[in-house]
Amino acid sequence: MTQQRRIKVGIVGGTGYTGVELLRMLATHPQAEIQAVTSRQDAGTPVAKMFPSLRGRVELAFAEPAKAGLESCDVVFFATPNGVAMSEAPALLAQGVRVVDLSADFRIRDIAEWEEWYRMKHASPALVAEAVYGLCEINREAIRGARLIANPGCYPTAVQLGFIPLLEAGLIDRDWLIADAKSGVSGAGRKAEMHILFSEASDNFSAYGVSGHRHWPEIRQGLARAAGAEVGLTFTPHLTPMIRGIHATLYARITREADFQALFEARYAKEPFVDVMPAGSHPDTRSVRASNLCRIALHRPHQATGRKDILVVLSTIDNLVKGASGQAIQNMNIMFGLPETAGLESVPVVP
Amino acid sequence: MTQQRRIKVGIVGGTGYTGVELLRMLATHPQAEIQAVTSRQDAGTPVAKMFPSLRGRVELAFAEPAKAGLESCDVVFFATPNGVAMSEAPALLAQGVRVVDLSADFRIRDIAEWEEWYRMKHASPALVAEAVYGLCEINREAIRGARLIANPGCYPTAVQLGFIPLLEAGLIDRDWLIADAKSGVSGAGRKAEMHILFSEASDNFSAYGVSGHRHWPEIRQGLARAAGAEVGLTFTPHLTPMIRGIHATLYARITREADFQALFEARYAKEPFVDVMPAGSHPDTRSVRASNLCRIALHRPHQATGRKDILVVLSTIDNLVKGASGQAIQNMNIMFGLPETAGLESVPVVP
Amino acid sequence: MTQQRRIKVGIVGGTGYTGVELLRMLATHPQAEIQAVTSRQDAGTPVAKMFPSLRGRVELAFAEPAKAGLESCDVVFFATPNGVAMSEAPALLAQGVRVVDLSADFRIRDIAEWEEWYRMKHASPALVAEAVYGLCEINREAIRGARLIANPGCYPTAVQLGFIPLLEAGLIDRDWLIADAKSGVSGAGRKAEMHILFSEASDNFSAYGVSGHRHWPEIRQGLARAAGAEVGLTFTPHLTPMIRGIHATLYARITREADFQALFEARYAKEPFVDVMPAGSHPDTRSVRASNLCRIALHRPHQATGRKDILVVLSTIDNLVKGASGQAIQNMNIMFGLPETAGLESVPVVP
Amino acid sequence: MTQQRRIKVGIVGGTGYTGVELLRMLATHPQAEIQAVTSRQDAGTPVAKMFPSLRGRVELAFAEPAKAGLESCDVVFFATPNGVAMSEAPALLAQGVRVVDLSADFRIRDIAEWEEWYRMKHASPALVAEAVYGLCEINREAIRGARLIANPGCYPTAVQLGFIPLLEAGLIDRDWLIADAKSGVSGAGRKAEMHILFSEASDNFSAYGVSGHRHWPEIRQGLARAAGAEVGLTFTPHLTPMIRGIHATLYARITREADFQALFEARYAKEPFVDVMPAGSHPDTRSVRASNLCRIALHRPHQATGRKDILVVLSTIDNLVKGASGQAIQNMNIMFGLPETAGLESVPVVP
Repeated sequence: MTQQRRIKVGIVGGTGYTGVELLRMLATHPQAEIQAVTSRQDAGTPVAKMFPSLRGRVELAFAEPAKAGLESCDVVFFATPNGVAMSEAPALLAQGVRVVDLSADFRIRDIAEWEEWYRMKHASPALVAEAVYGLCEINREAIRGARLIANPGCYPTAVQLGFIPLLEAGLIDRDWLIADAKSGVSGAGRKAEMHILFSEASDNFSAYGVSGHRHWPEIRQGLARAAGAEVGLTFTPHLTPMIRGIHATLYARITREADFQALFEARYAKEPFVDVMPAGSHPDTRSVRASNLCRIALHRPHQATGRKDILVVLSTIDNLVKGASGQAIQNMNIMFGLPETAGLESVPVVP
Repeated sequence: MTQQRRIKVGIVGGTGYTGVELLRMLATHPQAEIQAVTSRQDAGTPVAKMFPSLRGRVELAFAEPAKAGLESCDVVFFATPNGVAMSEAPALLAQGVRVVDLSADFRIRDIAEWEEWYRMKHASPALVAEAVYGLCEINREAIRGARLIANPGCYPTAVQLGFIPLLEAGLIDRDWLIADAKSGVSGAGRKAEMHILFSEASDNFSAYGVSGHRHWPEIRQGLARAAGAEVGLTFTPHLTPMIRGIHATLYARITREADFQALFEARYAKEPFVDVMPAGSHPDTRSVRASNLCRIALHRPHQATGRKDILVVLSTIDNLVKGASGQAIQNMNIMFGLPETAGLESVPVVP
Repeated sequence: MTQQRRIKVGIVGGTGYTGVELLRMLATHPQAEIQAVTSRQDAGTPVAKMFPSLRGRVELAFAEPAKAGLESCDVVFFATPNGVAMSEAPALLAQGVRVVDLSADFRIRDIAEWEEWYRMKHASPALVAEAVYGLCEINREAIRGARLIANPGCYPTAVQLGFIPLLEAGLIDRDWLIADAKSGVSGAGRKAEMHILFSEASDNFSAYGVSGHRHWPEIRQGLARAAGAEVGLTFTPHLTPMIRGIHATLYARITREADFQALFEARYAKEPFVDVMPAGSHPDTRSVRASNLCRIALHRPHQATGRKDILVVLSTIDNLVKGASGQAIQNMNIMFGLPETAGLESVPVVP
Repeated sequence: MTQQRRIKVGIVGGTGYTGVELLRMLATHPQAEIQAVTSRQDAGTPVAKMFPSLRGRVELAFAEPAKAGLESCDVVFFATPNGVAMSEAPALLAQGVRVVDLSADFRIRDIAEWEEWYRMKHASPALVAEAVYGLCEINREAIRGARLIANPGCYPTAVQLGFIPLLEAGLIDRDWLIADAKSGVSGAGRKAEMHILFSEASDNFSAYGVSGHRHWPEIRQGLARAAGAEVGLTFTPHLTPMIRGIHATLYARITREADFQALFEARYAKEPFVDVMPAGSHPDTRSVRASNLCRIALHRPHQATGRKDILVVLSTIDNLVKGASGQAIQNMNIMFGLPETAGLESVPVVP
């Protein structure tokens, strides 16, 4: 294996958080080599000048997309705003380059629904049908042969991994799903916007997008697929004053009793990146910080009176790793037949 | 009014966060005067030595409880761990001192239930029946004449204020209430415990007590009272990396459609400390920081498919003010016929 | 006193942190009334819509500067970027309105030096000579009669209050002053800039502007005035992951021994907002949070060997209050003969 | 190299932050194997139960020190409070086990001075003379053959690496050194103490130990050794509200002009873990977060008037890595002839 040719990797849009996170992890990936990192705005700037954390680890400069030689890469990651990959991926695919898109361009099957939520015309509707939704724990086989991966969103990853075993087994009321999710501020991206300033977001907590959030259709689509039928989902995102991490608190109404702990343990027994904790645990986001893990725990809350049929699932990930760049690398590993954990073995950073 | 005799105030247990918060607000209260602050462990230490923020504002030293002259106060606040007030309040009441207990000793009507959750024998069960639950927006009249106030818990304040208008009006399924609540770390008190160390709690998020938390019976009791019948409540507390603030995200199933916004606005129209924000708002905890306000907003989340009957209520308070010491002072103001907002008029501190 | 006509106040540029902080404090000022708050960009927007913390406390909307009626105010605060007040203050002054400028336009006596550091041409050099530098503890008498106040910068306030007693008394080497200062992130203002994003600034610490910072000439000018001769000053600012607060650690070489503690206590004995703490104290920024206080403590560090002549002064303020808006109101109080502490009596918010 | 027998490692005191950090890094070290982790108090508890971040990565339970089989290890790390290693290391050394002590027991050559600062009688004064001070950049050769390493303190590492090139070259006034250092809260250890609670330490900044701190004699000893003569050092530590990181701001008076940038670059040219940044840079602590790097930058501050002979050195490390456990592993690597960067190659975690 070690003699094997290294996978040549290109990154489109390397100046955001998912971009720098790809760079951090790929810099130590034993079987990948970063060939090019593009940025229209910062072309010519050494990557390590913008991100001193990469000094001595990434020698490249940001390149003009057109001159970056992306077409000679084995795989290209799009770490771009929504709307870029759908325009630029087709040319790469045509030249035999495989693509992992970290944006939302290929995640929603229903083009009209996508266009409504993302407020633009889709440039490559045909590719949407081909794209494989890269939630590895659900689609591993399809990912293996895929040319184009729609890497899941951060909230959708945490929420789906927590609900799917229950929906697959048909044990809960699929018309009655509540996902109360909390995200660190890096989930909003590396953009100069007022509400994510330190002085606005720290020592503060709020919900946002309660009336409607773009990750809602993505989650619903995934849950419906697992359930084999439409689902009723309420999804409430919150901003919490930490850099990384998503904590999804999921509420389900049990329709048939079962050993839920055993169900989850069996469902994820072979998954290298899903950790079903002992019943009654409270996973904290730092226990997955800077790692590709999803930790899950189940609870049956005390209900002295009233209904006793509520199951609470706690699901935590690092939004930039399992919720973005780590899962993208996991997808790459699967696509190219590498060990699935290659480049993703670092231990969560605590404290 | 300004010539009126000032209320003489005693504080039992002044070294915790609710104690120092009482001191902060009472120091500028126009009609109250702090007579004594007790602490067994720190008797003799000037208050301002332990809390330099109070230098020049509080000249007292912590006093031995027995020598503090509490019996000559008009009102005594217990800012003590659970189990103290139930032992010490009776003697003060017997001497005509009125008592506001910030601990949980007198909050739960059902003694057996209290003893189960708080794991001790109740020392004054008779007083539980007399005590008035000090949620001002519900019990104002009873508070006026009360000798003994059970000041509500922080989570219970935020959650009840958000659910009560709906339950009073009978518009939601009372068997199906979900309260997903997030608290700043000061809610855990000023105690040297590992899990609330900066290096453990910052840049981190987790649920706790999901299987059962002491505030659950208190909330359930209050909601049942408002509903006029037993309720089914799931309550999930979380620790969020900020000092102050509670954000409760409440989920209800609508059984009868109504103008919910108008309902809330009418219910709280005369309340000086409840602010019903415009529909669709997202109140953040800092907008109530260091103030006695509760800000509430309502949402009907997007539900393209599945059930459309979910109402989301967002309710935010400062856990140390409206969730503890501020509400205690509000209770005092009501008890003594002072303007209800006296000493509580400072504007939230933003940023 | 209470029948006295209230001071009519205008605020130019109310959407930044110093603007909202003026609003927070003026909303409860017993003898001032906010007449107008201007913002070119947000004219028409209710103030409380942009800052929900002010709901119910400030009923005004942001006004077009030209239509705000500033000329009928008794005093106008400029909470604007550098360069605005020097253009707009003259017209107001001409109409008899007094002006407190929170920006840097009138702080530096030497026009050429100002133009070098602030990279623009000064529009009102004549007014620079008239303007009174509003460090109340130094210039109280001049402030009383002033038409135009140059409100000091945040770092300059903390550093000058710590060094001035030593320089006035001629006890230290004035050629050898080091000010290592740390600021909360709100000091950078309410601007959508990348480096002050939560995900950039939190859990992080760095120096900035080490080779040269605009507050250096302002501090040097003030220290030279106190010393009666030029001074040699090294000033190093740092960004620390908190919202509010400045902590200046000042190093001086003692040239003549004295009772420094007594010196500071005497110098500030009558100052309502300077608190000289007991020798050996370590003031923390939260002990002045949201208050107009400056707390100072002195240390003689352990020096088993080598020179023993180092004095360390620790000086802390809230950068938005004593370092900006609070001091501006203190200046207004002095200018109009109000009690100096009016509107500034709230107790620091701890925790 | 890959067939080489793995180094058998023992850790005494694995429940603190330096302990868990050793575990985090050793878990992926290619040539080391954790044999035992001891804890008197938590013997029997699985390591991964206390630190869920290590689930699936460390299968050991904490062991009773006496039963842990430490004597069969190749090397034992002491991640214990001061005073433990000096008592327990001798027995291990006698059995041929090499020891890296992360506590302060063997750092100070002068026993009397150590006893004064650490307030205990030294149990193994003879070993102090033998112990090698493990600042790798200074003592690499001695470390290679050492049986016992005194791993440097966190502040001492950052301060010494910043001053040493200047002192070795004799270019600054060695009687006039100022180190203003800021540490994240994890530097205070994993101890249930009030002042490092989240609600005390966050959104707050203060100096501490200004009159005297235990790291002062350690730094002075190291600087004196580099200078070849006694030095005058003022050292001021501060607590800053972040988890990890030390930022030392160092002030020196230049006695002889030189190309300081070139000096530093040459001095550290071959060092894998010291990064001399371009002149004028401002290294931030996150650029070394969770890595073993020390990043250094030099500044000549603007000095329009007064003395122009001040050099400012900015030196940043992760206090738990290069300031503790990472440097301990670097020492182990040197001692056993492994590649010096083995197990220490992870990229800093940004954001």
